[in-house]
Amino acid sequence: MTNHPMPTLHDIITARPHVYRYLRPTPLYRYSGLSELLEAEVWVKHENHQPVGAFKVRGGLNLAAHLTEAERRGGLFTASTGNHGQSIAFAAQVHGLKATIAVPEGANPGKVAAMRGLGAEVIFHGPDFDTAREWIAAEAEARGGRFVGPTEEALICGVGTYALEIMETLPDAQTIIVPVGAGSGVCGTSIVAKTVNPKIEVIAAQSAQAPAMQLSWQSGELVTAETRTFAEGVATRVPFLNTQLIMRKHLDDFVLVDDTAIKEAIVLLLQHTHNLAEGAGAVALAAALQLKERLAGKKVVLIMSGGNLSLEQLQDVLGN
Amino acid sequence: MTNHPMPTLHDIITARPHVYRYLRPTPLYRYSGLSELLEAEVWVKHENHQPVGAFKVRGGLNLAAHLTEAERRGGLFTASTGNHGQSIAFAAQVHGLKATIAVPEGANPGKVAAMRGLGAEVIFHGPDFDTAREWIAAEAEARGGRFVGPTEEALICGVGTYALEIMETLPDAQTIIVPVGAGSGVCGTSIVAKTVNPKIEVIAAQSAQAPAMQLSWQSGELVTAETRTFAEGVATRVPFLNTQLIMRKHLDDFVLVDDTAIKEAIVLLLQHTHNLAEGAGAVALAAALQLKERLAGKKVVLIMSGGNLSLEQLQDVLGN
Repeated sequence: MTNHPMPTLHDIITARPHVYRYLRPTPLYRYSGLSELLEAEVWVKHENHQPVGAFKVRGGLNLAAHLTEAERRGGLFTASTGNHGQSIAFAAQVHGLKATIAVPEGANPGKVAAMRGLGAEVIFHGPDFDTAREWIAAEAEARGGRFVGPTEEALICGVGTYALEIMETLPDAQTIIVPVGAGSGVCGTSIVAKTVNPKIEVIAAQSAQAPAMQLSWQSGELVTAETRTFAEGVATRVPFLNTQLIMRKHLDDFVLVDDTAIKEAIVLLLQHTHNLAEGAGAVALAAALQLKERLAGKKVVLIMSGGNLSLEQLQDVLGN
Repeated sequence: MTNHPMPTLHDIITARPHVYRYLRPTPLYRYSGLSELLEAEVWVKHENHQPVGAFKVRGGLNLAAHLTEAERRGGLFTASTGNHGQSIAFAAQVHGLKATIAVPEGANPGKVAAMRGLGAEVIFHGPDFDTAREWIAAEAEARGGRFVGPTEEALICGVGTYALEIMETLPDAQTIIVPVGAGSGVCGTSIVAKTVNPKIEVIAAQSAQAPAMQLSWQSGELVTAETRTFAEGVATRVPFLNTQLIMRKHLDDFVLVDDTAIKEAIVLLLQHTHNLAEGAGAVALAAALQLKERLAGKKVVLIMSGGNLSLEQLQDVLGN
């Protein structure tokens, strides 16, 4: 892997006003039930409390604040079946821009409805995400719009603002566990945490049924891997170079957790926090349970990245 | 019913610094799915995002800020099987006070654990809430502590701060629907809304399986009624005079909704907002669906008062 300019703590601090123009900081709560379970002091960062139900909304707002006049006129184009699309749709709505989002045929109707509810044009194209993505990138170019990739620096800096909030609320946090999809969340988190205090341990986690980002991090090569996880927020088949480079620089560890453990973690979060987590939003707790011995007695922050679990997924998780 | 001093908008504004010393404002979000369903512009006030998972935490903080030195030394005593107890426990914890909470034998173990997790001493006493309540009031007197009743003015003023937040975020709200247990939430809401703009319609709602507060409001007498609802947050058997007087002055309407409709509303809220509501927290949506024709086209705010649904209740609601 090669050298590459990386966003800095300063870039993330600079994103704050663009994020807080439309959002408030999210809560970071300590839960006694989870603390007992892990024999540690367990805090949950509630990015599921965001509008659109996930941390990604911060990134879209920062990106939309930095467009050129021509890009504003052309509008935003992206591909997504989930939270990234809702983030871009939300940012476009509040900034008065047009958003066009490509989704593969058969995409989750609830998420499509949510993007449309935010005023985005949603276009079904092709059998899978990568086909939809290539097509919409070409469309953006043909129509003079701005294609938004999932790991752009402006997105990393926007989502990194949640890590600044953690540092303010709990400056003596010892370990932060972050779910990884494309990697924007864990990159923003590790840039902030490691710059503020290199002793803070940042641990990434992904589903064992979608290990591409973890295998890439471990090997130092970009490794593609099939995805079979139900947790679409961490279902990355093709890894991204820029987030891998940041992760290699900053991460202390990267663990894989089985989908079964993720589902159990969703139930534990319902029980102990009364919050609905989507699969990705429960990955950090699943990882913490796997690392229980190592975390014992520490102040641990779990990133609940999002709450967009469908009713069908919830029924499945509860064993119906 | 007789004349009685009532809290004012000014009293509620005065509570703000005591509340915001420990809490942040909660989100008020518009949901496109619920708006389509009701053919109205539907906003949800997320009091379920509070620490302890319910609006009541605001009241406890305001009360604890106004204790005498003797009351601080004696500590707080109350009876509760639910959110009121967690509110008092939370307020006592952050103010460095001792909290003693009586619960009836057989109280929900999850809620007892939550109160203990906040550092409260929990004592099981007697077969039902009223027995526990009378006993702890006598204990407070014997031990020189401060007994906290469920509808004290300081509690009403503290919880009323969420209504100030609604007025700031959505000053052109037309209808606010509020679940009623003992009445502190609806009193705070209606004092704020009617003082700021008497045209705002404030509608109370309770379970048809626990109609005491509604029957009392309708008749102008204090009417006791048995409770058979699963939604413990609105399960009030004996009505309270002070909240009834405020409700008679300010409320536009007070509707009853069946427990079946409340359970359906919990499912709709999971689906459209990805938030877990407890029974009381879903009562406002159930009422809105019942009043659909009357609300059509309006800007409607639903108070999601709390999210403390147990896993067993969730399983029941989802039809297992």
